Formats: sequence, structure tokens, C-alpha cells
Amino acid sequence: MRVETFDIRFPTSRELDGSDAMNPDPDYSAAYVVLRTEDGAEGHGFTFTIGRGNEVVRAALDALAPFVVNGPVDDLGEFARRLTHDSQIRWLGPEKGVMHLAAAALINAAWDLRARKAGKPLWELMSEMSSEEIVDLVDWRYLSDALTADEAVDLLAAALPGRTSRTEALKQHGYPAYTTSAGWLGYDDAKIDRLARQAVADGFRLIKLKVGADRADDVRRFALARAAVGPDVRIAVDANQRWDVPEAIEWMSALSAYDPWWIEEPTSPDDILGHAAIRRALTGKGIRVATGEHVANRVVFKQLLQAGAIDIVQLDACRVAGVNENVAILLLAAKFGKPVCPHAGGVGLCEAVQHLSYFDYVAVSGRLDDRVIEYVDHLHEHFTDPVVVERGAYRPPSAPGFSTRIKPESLIRYSYPEGAAWN
Amino acid sequence: MRVETFDIRFPTSRELDGSDAMNPDPDYSAAYVVLRTEDGAEGHGFTFTIGRGNEVVRAALDALAPFVVNGPVDDLGEFARRLTHDSQIRWLGPEKGVMHLAAAALINAAWDLRARKAGKPLWELMSEMSSEEIVDLVDWRYLSDALTADEAVDLLAAALPGRTSRTEALKQHGYPAYTTSAGWLGYDDAKIDRLARQAVADGFRLIKLKVGADRADDVRRFALARAAVGPDVRIAVDANQRWDVPEAIEWMSALSAYDPWWIEEPTSPDDILGHAAIRRALTGKGIRVATGEHVANRVVFKQLLQAGAIDIVQLDACRVAGVNENVAILLLAAKFGKPVCPHAGGVGLCEAVQHLSYFDYVAVSGRLDDRVIEYVDHLHEHFTDPVVVERGAYRPPSAPGFSTRIKPESLIRYSYPEGAAWN
Repeated sequence: MRVETFDIRFPTSRELDGSDAMNPDPDYSAAYVVLRTEDGAEGHGFTFTIGRGNEVVRAALDALAPFVVNGPVDDLGEFARRLTHDSQIRWLGPEKGVMHLAAAALINAAWDLRARKAGKPLWELMSEMSSEEIVDLVDWRYLSDALTADEAVDLLAAALPGRTSRTEALKQHGYPAYTTSAGWLGYDDAKIDRLARQAVADGFRLIKLKVGADRADDVRRFALARAAVGPDVRIAVDANQRWDVPEAIEWMSALSAYDPWWIEEPTSPDDILGHAAIRRALTGKGIRVATGEHVANRVVFKQLLQAGAIDIVQLDACRVAGVNENVAILLLAAKFGKPVCPHAGGVGLCEAVQHLSYFDYVAVSGRLDDRVIEYVDHLHEHFTDPVVVERGAYRPPSAPGFSTRIKPESLIRYSYPEGAAWN
Repeated sequence: MRVETFDIRFPTSRELDGSDAMNPDPDYSAAYVVLRTEDGAEGHGFTFTIGRGNEVVRAALDALAPFVVNGPVDDLGEFARRLTHDSQIRWLGPEKGVMHLAAAALINAAWDLRARKAGKPLWELMSEMSSEEIVDLVDWRYLSDALTADEAVDLLAAALPGRTSRTEALKQHGYPAYTTSAGWLGYDDAKIDRLARQAVADGFRLIKLKVGADRADDVRRFALARAAVGPDVRIAVDANQRWDVPEAIEWMSALSAYDPWWIEEPTSPDDILGHAAIRRALTGKGIRVATGEHVANRVVFKQLLQAGAIDIVQLDACRVAGVNENVAILLLAAKFGKPVCPHAGGVGLCEAVQHLSYFDYVAVSGRLDDRVIEYVDHLHEHFTDPVVVERGAYRPPSAPGFSTRIKPESLIRYSYPEGAAWN
């Protein structure tokens, strides 16, 4: 096995796409890795960043590479634990930040390799695994006060009977999507109005607006979006961690007249008790609390669920330790009966995370109600197997792999700093 | 300003010094930085790691260096916020993991520079700041549901009257230390017995044992240590995150007959609710719960205090964003009335963290009861201003700076991988 790493950056800050209250000028980026086997097979994976520091994640990929090169990849549960539990490297987290982002990229690349060798899309490969095989993927350390491996086997067994029919339903009808493309903070009122109406015409039943920079602006933009989409389309708002706890409660109370479906990232992603306090204050106003794209690992998700701090679990394909840790998070969400609505957008996050939602529907929760995958219309053209979203629904891919492969010409053009896009 | 970075590693794994249930073979290391001003002044800082991955932290130092080079260092509150809140780099945490370790090293180096220019040891410089100056050092985001800046000013004002007399008391009597040197997991029974007796003879009133690998071994080693030190010397135990919540409660119940003073890191440092559950179960047995060396930031400390999850706050000089974030943690601990007993050992952690405890005693909590700084007898010979521990007490340094400077010859010899120590 060989490991090749890349620092890929797209100059998105030039257009203010992706602008929000905490991230005014992101350059959407990927710390990207290719695993090459002796027999010529490849697995591609990445983690998503927003520019500066992407080279540090690449250095982390290089630091973890020996654990890939010097060991087998046949048991992906063992593989993931090997990458997250080296006793010396663990000190740098544990299980959070740069090293965990790098572990995500490598673990996801190993899954791409596995699915390609099997000739199946990842979601279908995973949906055909036995309950015991699925449970063995998880690092169970620190979870037993909320969920044990035995309970998880029972939970998966309960969903077994419907797997085939749900797989068929998924292929036929797709999976609900929502769009964030209408509501970036850098957009003016006319653009929001136009894009919100377009989103409804395109079949979306939920749109999302960025909030948190200026309260009066937020009220005006929300009123405008509500008028554009009407009363029956859901509007979620996203503060990107901008507020303290009391401020989150006040600000959302001011927006409650326009019927927000959820408030996403109202405060620090580390603040479990803070999210719980916000949820207690807002539940009576019909506002749900959502978070997850910056939640460091399964231990924090466990507590958000134990504390009744969130209504919606927004896992991310590349923030935690890849497919394996996300299986733990899906199982926890199912145990606590909360819907998973993944974070996506960025570079390739839509491509990757769709597989996890399909697997959740077919083999874990078995449910679609209030489930929806984020969709952002950015940068898909750089992927060999880009997502297909039609009439407000993701269409599951049939091509083998994890849909995480960037085209060779894009890898060259957007390599930082030497690629043509940066000259 | 110029920034120079180093990857320094000591081959400590050859002796099993520092071995515990999660870290069997650490090579104590420092990602080290020197700030050089135009006028020839220097500030030295570092963060501590245990070997592999230290090069990734050095890459993070290099990624943050432009924020040091391109801005002023006169307002250290602004300086610290600049290093932790770049909108693109923040995505890699936020405020945790590799990037936060690097921020710690740079912020601590800026404080070393400041104290040297003032011709004072850091603890004394800080102890002479006004309440408002101290409060301005803190990043108050995410704290207002537990502590506001105004409350902090009041809290500091209440401690003002005794500052002079406590400074004198500190210079005369020192600050209580405890030792971990007797209880590394790799040591055999005879060595533990000998070192425990030696610790008492040396004046220590608290010693610490590593636990968590094998329960029967732990009971035997604890019984042996208790017999060696007698009933009046406190024995703390440290599981280094080895257990799940139910396991922590069972294991500590088995050790409770030997009167452990605290259980340190019983489970994941991210598990606030887990620590709270463990504390509820163990308080009745007279066992305190301690954690902090791996707690990612002030938001997690805030919750550990809000949830009543810990009895003892074990801040670390280099895990959170240096002096500034530790001021926030000292203020939170004072608000909640919990003693701070810093994590030390490693490389230079004793040298650095002593300043924070002295500052806490003189200007924040104003208290010494149940306060104690960890002491480990490793690697002090590499520092230009090594700690002095006599009769179980730290003696405050009078030399200017933060005591964070490694000797030039050690920087050369232990540079990794090119230094002579690694050939």
C-alpha cells in the first residue's frame, strides 16, 4: 500500500459563496489522500477545511500514513481504531481537531477502496452487512453508559426485515434534500428572494438561511424569505456558533414569529449544557435545536443526546473518524429516536454523506420522517461521480465507491499553492 | 518579529518513566517556538506532546506564525484572540487539538517575552495587573451563562486587599507540591514501596499512583503504597481516561477501602455528563473527581463546573490557549469555589504552570487549602530556570520570564530527528 497526499484549495472567497457569521471568506479546501494497493486498486478520501491550515491537515495525513502502510486494511473496524488510538498521537486530541480530521480522510479512503473492490456504492455495500459486522466497525469505548454493542445488535436486527423494500424505495424515490444555496450571509435581499422562490420551484421543502451577524437584518431577511416560500415550506436558520447562550435565546425569540424549523449551531459545538438550555427555552416556541458539523466525536454526540440538548443530529462525513465513527453516531441517534440530517456542502461533503443517510434509512433507523440531507450547489463538477439532486431529492449513486474521487485534472489545477488556479 | 520553531523530543520511552494505562511508552516532546524582536529580545514557549505527531504541531506553529509576525504584541488579550479566531483556521478545531496546542505555545512565548522585558517572573508581573487588565486578557465568548466580565472584575477586586501579604507568604513558604514519581505503571512493587517512602521523607503530603490496566494489580499496589506512607498522607490515583463510566465507578469502589483522595481522568475528557455521574457515585465514598490535562478549552471547563462534575480543576499550561485561556479557567474555578491543582510533569510543564498557581493564590482565589501543584522529577536539567521543589513545596522563581526556556545545547541535542540524542 502507498499513501499519496494533496493540499487542494478552491478560491471560493472571491464570490462570497459560503459566507456566514463566523466564516466571512472561506476558500473551500480538501486535505486529500489516495491509497494505492500493490494490485493497482485505489481508494480516495478527503477531509474538508476552509483554507488556511489545510497544509497542517496534510502534515497530519503524512504522520498517520505509516499506520496505513504497515498494517492490513481487511478489518476496517481494527483499521479505524489503529488510526485513532496510537498512544503517542492520541495525546494531540484525543479524537478531535487536526489529527481526527486526517483520520477521517484515511478511513474514508479505505472505505472507497473497499466499495470499489466490491463493485458497489458504499451505501449498498454497508446495507448488506450483518448486524454483527456493523457493530464491529464501532469503537465502543466511552459509549456503554448510553448504548452497548449488544443493544446495537438488537436495534439493527429490528430493522432487518425492511431492508430490501427500503432499498427499492430509495432507488425509486430518492432521499429528501434541503438547500442552503439561497441564504448565504453575503447575498443581498433581491438574490435571497429570487433564490428562495427558485428553491421551491425546484421541489425543495426546506431551505436554510444564515443568521447571526445583525439581528435587524436577520428579521428582515427571514420575513422576506418567508414571504417568498409561503407558510408550508420549512425554513431553518444557522448561526454558525455565533452566540452565547442567553443571546441565542433572545435572538431566536425575535425570529420565532416567522416559524423557524430549526436553529443550527446556536453556540459553541462543545457546549452540551448550553444547547440543552437553549432547547429548553425554544421548544415551547416550536423551534428545534440542531448541531453536529463541528461536534468533535461520538462522546460529545452521546452527551448531546443524553442531555436532551438537540432535536436534530447533523453528522458530518469528515469531521469525526470517518464512516466508522459515523456508524456509532447513527446508532446513538436511533437509540434516542432523533433524526439525522447531515451537514453537507463544502467540497464533496454532499457526495460523501449521502451514503451515510441511505445506510441509516435502509439498515439503522429505517425512517425518512423529518430526515433531510443538506444540499449546496458548489464544486460538484470536480468529482467523478457527482451527486444528482432532482425535484428536491438526492438520487442514490449506483457507481462503485464512496463518490469521494476528485477528477485528476482538478487535483492538478487546484493544488495549493502550485496549481494554475492559484497563479 | 521573527518566529523560529523546533521539534524537540526526549527518548523517555527507553526507561518507562511516564508510563500509564493509556500511554505505555511516551517520548516526552515539545513543539517549541522562539519569538525574536527587532531589538534582540526573545520570548520562548512550547507545547507538550508525547512523541509521534510533534512534527504536525510544529507545522501548526508555522501556520500561525504569520499572525504573530504581521501584528502587534502589546495587547496580549487581542494577541491571543487573533491566534485562536482566524476564521479559516478556526474550522480545524474550533479551539481544540493541534491548532490549539500551537496557539498555546505562541501565546506562552509572548508572555515570556513580556515578563522578560518587564524584568519580572511572570507570576509576579500578572499579580501586579489591575482587575480590569486581567479581565481583558480573557476571550469571553461562550462564558456569559456562567461568568461575565463584570462578575470577574468584582471577584478580582475582592482579592485585591491580600495581594501583598500573599506574595510575601509565597516567597517565604512556597506552594505545596505533590509527586507522581512514585507511581508510574511500569514500576515494580519494590520500586513503588521505596519511592513512596522517599516521597514522605522528602516532605510530600500527597502522592499519586497510575491505575487502570489491571484491577487486582491496582488493589495490590495501592495497599502497598498506603502501608508505605501511612494513613495521613493523601494518595490520589490516575486512570488516564481508561474507563467507561460504569467501569470507573466499579473500579474505584474496589479501591475505596484504601482512601483515595481523588480519581483523575476516570474517563474521556470530553465526557462532562460521565464525570458528573462518576462523581455522584463516588462522593459518598469520600473520593473526589479530578480532570483537566486533556480538557480542550474553557467551554468544557465551564460545563464541568456547571454540571458539578469535578471537585478539582487540573488546568494545563499548554493544552488550552496559554496564559490567557488559563486566566479564564482560574476565574471560573474561583466562581464555582473549586480548587485548581494543575497538571504538570512532561517537559517543562512544572516550570510553566507554577506561575499560574502563584497568580491564582495571590490575585484570584486567594486560597491555598487543598491546592497543590503536580511535581515530576524529569527533564528539569534542560531548562535555564528549572523549578525548585524543597520539603514538598515549590519555591517561586525570581528570574524574569515564564521559566519556559530550554538550554541552547539541549535544543540542538534533542532536535528530532537530526539531533545527537536520536542517532
